[in-house]
Amino acid sequence: MEIADWRDKIDSLDEQIVQMLNERAAAAIAIGEIKRQNSAPIYEPNRENTVYEHIRAVNPGPLSGAQVQDIYERVIDVMRALQRPRD
Amino acid sequence: MEIADWRDKIDSLDEQIVQMLNERAAAAIAIGEIKRQNSAPIYEPNRENTVYEHIRAVNPGPLSGAQVQDIYERVIDVMRALQRPRD
Repeated sequence: MEIADWRDKIDSLDEQIVQMLNERAAAAIAIGEIKRQNSAPIYEPNRENTVYEHIRAVNPGPLSGAQVQDIYERVIDVMRALQRPRD
Repeated sequence: MEIADWRDKIDSLDEQIVQMLNERAAAAIAIGEIKRQNSAPIYEPNRENTVYEHIRAVNPGPLSGAQVQDIYERVIDVMRALQRPRD
């Protein structure tokens, strides 16, 4: 395969990854609404650690555990911002 | 749906996202090998901008274009590190 073929594959993966990140965001927004109704805190470090443990446990490689966590720390930052109430 | 149900959905999405990030990483490594054989540069800002334009174009929301790009800047950082030669 040439570089152009690999890039086509990457573009196709990116479309699926973006789709699933948005499904994840919709779920995070739904959880934020429930938390707001219950006056529960948005920031839950235990849940965030559970997410990191889970993605490291299911990570098949070639990315290292540290690398998937590095990506997910950004994912979690963005998702947490989505859960904050908008004025 | 309760918080636990949404979290089950998130865990399932995370497994798929991690799988696809690793497929993307395998493709990036393959491109890195081809670049090395051709003595081509690893850092290609034009390609990176094309990736950002693509993910913004296919982004269905609720994430904003800025938010998906924010996540992808971390993805690209990790992928670029994978393409660097290891000693």
